[in-house]
Amino acid sequence: MTTCDGPYGPGAEFELIRRLTDLSGALPPEVRIGPGDDAAVLEGGWVVSTDLSVEDVHFRRAWITDREVGYRAATAALSDMAAMGATPVGLLVSIAAPRGGAVDIEAVQAGVCQAADAVGAAVIGGDVSRSPGPLMIDVVALGRTAWPVRRDGAEPGDHVWVTGSLGASAAAVAAWNAGEEPSEALRSAFVRPIARVQEARCLVEQEVVDAMIDVSDGLVGDVGHIAAASGMKVTLELSKIPVADAAIGRLGKNDALQAALTGGEDYELCFVTDPDIVDRAHFLDVYGVIVTRVGSVSEGEGVWLQAEDGTVTRAVAGGFDHWGDA
Amino acid sequence: MTTCDGPYGPGAEFELIRRLTDLSGALPPEVRIGPGDDAAVLEGGWVVSTDLSVEDVHFRRAWITDREVGYRAATAALSDMAAMGATPVGLLVSIAAPRGGAVDIEAVQAGVCQAADAVGAAVIGGDVSRSPGPLMIDVVALGRTAWPVRRDGAEPGDHVWVTGSLGASAAAVAAWNAGEEPSEALRSAFVRPIARVQEARCLVEQEVVDAMIDVSDGLVGDVGHIAAASGMKVTLELSKIPVADAAIGRLGKNDALQAALTGGEDYELCFVTDPDIVDRAHFLDVYGVIVTRVGSVSEGEGVWLQAEDGTVTRAVAGGFDHWGDA
Repeated sequence: MTTCDGPYGPGAEFELIRRLTDLSGALPPEVRIGPGDDAAVLEGGWVVSTDLSVEDVHFRRAWITDREVGYRAATAALSDMAAMGATPVGLLVSIAAPRGGAVDIEAVQAGVCQAADAVGAAVIGGDVSRSPGPLMIDVVALGRTAWPVRRDGAEPGDHVWVTGSLGASAAAVAAWNAGEEPSEALRSAFVRPIARVQEARCLVEQEVVDAMIDVSDGLVGDVGHIAAASGMKVTLELSKIPVADAAIGRLGKNDALQAALTGGEDYELCFVTDPDIVDRAHFLDVYGVIVTRVGSVSEGEGVWLQAEDGTVTRAVAGGFDHWGDA
Repeated sequence: MTTCDGPYGPGAEFELIRRLTDLSGALPPEVRIGPGDDAAVLEGGWVVSTDLSVEDVHFRRAWITDREVGYRAATAALSDMAAMGATPVGLLVSIAAPRGGAVDIEAVQAGVCQAADAVGAAVIGGDVSRSPGPLMIDVVALGRTAWPVRRDGAEPGDHVWVTGSLGASAAAVAAWNAGEEPSEALRSAFVRPIARVQEARCLVEQEVVDAMIDVSDGLVGDVGHIAAASGMKVTLELSKIPVADAAIGRLGKNDALQAALTGGEDYELCFVTDPDIVDRAHFLDVYGVIVTRVGSVSEGEGVWLQAEDGTVTRAVAGGFDHWGDA
């Protein structure tokens, strides 16, 4: 089992990212927050993040339309803005596409623009290239906030929350991998995720959030980043995890819980607050989104799972391998 | 022959970029300059641009090391900062790399960091993914300037200049494509280009530049962007083009001139000024870089080539196909 003392939780990808980050030198003074959070923060309150989507790694073109590829890639980047409490302003989009018209680049871009429009942002630049292999899209999001929310503010006694429900996106992939078409609810979770920009802004304006991240790699992995960055232990109560009904319908209760914990790509928010401070009814009224308390913060390290019978075990990220050998 | 009235010169790639740009909606007020220049400009003087490098499109791994791949990709992005007269601050680097250790991702990142260090910038974020196909790197550059230099300021009577010499990078590719190893001078031009950040800052501080661009797609294509954005005609004097000696040595005089005009990836600056205002000796003394007046601006449209015998013909971008069918 890996332990670490940097801003990243355990896992091979994060080890690589940490090594890559270590290669860079000192940060210029105009950079307020460097690598290690959902986004970098620059002088003037600008927030910037990048998110790479690769065919046959993050999606398959047999599953979703070119427009959905663009929408989804952009939403992943916009979700990082939400996780910082930032208002998205602009996107830069780099697309490498196979030659010969197999991919409709304008449809990809239209999907990106749709996701940008939905949060009041615009596409302000980009690059295009032929690809001799898969379709790849790299989306850079730029946003603004006066109060960036980091991962490192969790304190003992804090509560851990998530918006919406988890596991449906991973369950859609499981259906496709089984050669079946997912239900509309599952498919929608994969192709039309929503970046929780408004909800995050609301939380920031209420000044109740000590730490926040978006659930892109799976709740256990993402909470692990908060735990590592804050130097704290997070205990998740398994009975409280808001597993998506459609995921339970597809996978059964146990596998759906696993998908919720480690599947990722739900793009919900996971945030940490002082105890008993979140107005759940307000969230439901204004945004139509449930928020659920899923755990708590204490002295220690790592992410721990508390079962209904009270037993507690340390969680390992990345257990739900919904991509198989893809 | 294509004519156009937007900020881009003629050419299929630019037509596509124009169509993609048209898909985006109105720009948020925090965006000072949107798509269509070397970079977007944001409130607070932040400048941002992205540059995509794809294996077997922009480079071959048989030709250059992984570290050189990273250095070169980063320099292409930093060169866009130079073209805006901006001081680079940070890079975000997305890398999609084949599984199995064929690519040393840390070496790629080390090359990126080397290019960043050389201009006082740092890597402030990024993303990594497996690629089921080629190595791809998308580098986002962020910089700052109080006076962004655009492409649209060329006026009748202005002079057109370039820094350094042109054509060596394309000549290196021609050598590799012929199955030969390029000379060290040619190879160096391809793998160790220099972003002309200091030179651009000097020009901006002297307040002599009406328009600027970096020579990434070839002088004719890039000057064509200035001509189109400014609504002007640019005439290049063929006898004045600073063709790299090493390119002439490899390709002969005529093909080397073609490489200089349309080969691209030289990452020199092309800039437009009032007549007789550039201090060539200062440039050579301080930066060790020659600057050469290569043409002039007049009422009209397009890029025109004036031969030594005085005949003038309209130029067509992209004539030097140094990539063959790659």
